[in-house]
Amino acid sequence: MRLIPREERFFELFVDLAAVIQSASRALLEMLDKMDDLDARATNIRDLEHRGDNLTHDIKTRLNKTFITPFDREDIHALSSHMDDVLDNIEVAANKIVLYKIVTRSPRAVELGQIIVRCADRMHTAVGELEKGDHVVEHCIELNRLENDGDRVSRSAIAELFETESDPIALIKWKELLEVLEGAIDRCEDVANTLETVVIKNA
Amino acid sequence: MRLIPREERFFELFVDLAAVIQSASRALLEMLDKMDDLDARATNIRDLEHRGDNLTHDIKTRLNKTFITPFDREDIHALSSHMDDVLDNIEVAANKIVLYKIVTRSPRAVELGQIIVRCADRMHTAVGELEKGDHVVEHCIELNRLENDGDRVSRSAIAELFETESDPIALIKWKELLEVLEGAIDRCEDVANTLETVVIKNA
Amino acid sequence: MRLIPREERFFELFVDLAAVIQSASRALLEMLDKMDDLDARATNIRDLEHRGDNLTHDIKTRLNKTFITPFDREDIHALSSHMDDVLDNIEVAANKIVLYKIVTRSPRAVELGQIIVRCADRMHTAVGELEKGDHVVEHCIELNRLENDGDRVSRSAIAELFETESDPIALIKWKELLEVLEGAIDRCEDVANTLETVVIKNA
Repeated sequence: MRLIPREERFFELFVDLAAVIQSASRALLEMLDKMDDLDARATNIRDLEHRGDNLTHDIKTRLNKTFITPFDREDIHALSSHMDDVLDNIEVAANKIVLYKIVTRSPRAVELGQIIVRCADRMHTAVGELEKGDHVVEHCIELNRLENDGDRVSRSAIAELFETESDPIALIKWKELLEVLEGAIDRCEDVANTLETVVIKNA
Repeated sequence: MRLIPREERFFELFVDLAAVIQSASRALLEMLDKMDDLDARATNIRDLEHRGDNLTHDIKTRLNKTFITPFDREDIHALSSHMDDVLDNIEVAANKIVLYKIVTRSPRAVELGQIIVRCADRMHTAVGELEKGDHVVEHCIELNRLENDGDRVSRSAIAELFETESDPIALIKWKELLEVLEGAIDRCEDVANTLETVVIKNA
Repeated sequence: MRLIPREERFFELFVDLAAVIQSASRALLEMLDKMDDLDARATNIRDLEHRGDNLTHDIKTRLNKTFITPFDREDIHALSSHMDDVLDNIEVAANKIVLYKIVTRSPRAVELGQIIVRCADRMHTAVGELEKGDHVVEHCIELNRLENDGDRVSRSAIAELFETESDPIALIKWKELLEVLEGAIDRCEDVANTLETVVIKNA
């Protein structure tokens, strides 16, 4: 990787953003698993999303003001946007539970929540090693594998839903929640693809 | 901002495109508010969308043929794409009213339509001041605030819908219309973020 | 067009990817038309999507390792992403038929499938002529025309659906399938717009 002046702080900010995503993913999993205190849990996740928004905004402002960046500007931009999208999906999922007054626990939604936590952990590790660049590609392969898992789980969850849920309005609610959870995992794959690009370019 | 040869006309074309978005937003608000002459109103909005498409196409063709641009090519591309997306969402909203044979007035949809008009007005002002660059950031902050408003209104509108609408097919129609209206406001925020990028880079 | 060292193989890889999209589009049309052997047909389309994924991954890896590219890197990236999106939509459509246990033939879905095949054929021709650049713009105009056709067909198909389908769960399934088919056509238009950009820049 190219040398970077310390004050640019891009790597540090990405690690901070990844840590916020980790916290939000854990809060979401606990919400999906416990299905209690829903309002308070959603508010907490919304606060985390705001913290992430500030970090993303900070990254983009520094990017626009910096002449020399540690890796390509377009990749810094893409990485922060994709990480922000992961967080957005997590927040939207939490909000939909409250908005749609969903109160029952779904083992399939919990399963997707667990995959999101695993993605967030792996993303945090990958971003932390980005400056050295050593094992990033391995983490990206694992993130791609997790996305395949997520795809499989959400597809069969939706198939089950159509087989078991006869109330169309309940079906609409659950289908959308499952899709937003899957969306969070898909956005993690976008992060992985960007990380891989950065590492290959700087190999 | 960097000097630009007059003949490039990028700023002028963006102002023209913003004016088309303004007209379309007003036509959509009137449609949502009056809920009469739906076919004619949707056709009018579709014509405005075609006019916008031509302007977007013109911007992109000039961009690809121009060596020196008044601001970064990628931002010209992003700005025209996001403005085109705002217009697309407005046209899709009008079309869905006709397609789904929606005939009743929804105060919540009107509220979202009003926010779209406010966004379009602010976007027109911001784009008009882009060449000088003076107050653009203020307009972007206001566009972000309007997006938060839109988010709050659409979320509570959808929560209300699930509480009051027992006919699932009517629920599907209204939910989608509200989401497309919210989408138009989200795309205005994308425009604001691009404008902010342009101004920061050229500060 | 600029001179390119033979070994870069970008044009060749794009033609290969276009050929995979052609095969997948034909397999999807046959599936929509025959509505038999649904599992086997969906598996076949999924295999084609994997083959396309490998080609896309190959293009992006070469792109990140290549210093001089036959056309702008950002356009190579955009072209491969959009072509990949076309293939994704085709796979998702086939998968939804299986997932939702759709078993009846819909003339409207067949019509959309036919438009996807026409788009794929045209895209294959356009990509094959990209290196010379001669008739690419004509193919792009035709792809835009096909997208307008697709839009018209899917809009009226969805209007019909709301008029004729009284079972909300069946309506949800069919509406989504029609939207995914339309999405495949929209993504073909994104490909056309990128091809046009490449040709204009290199004119």
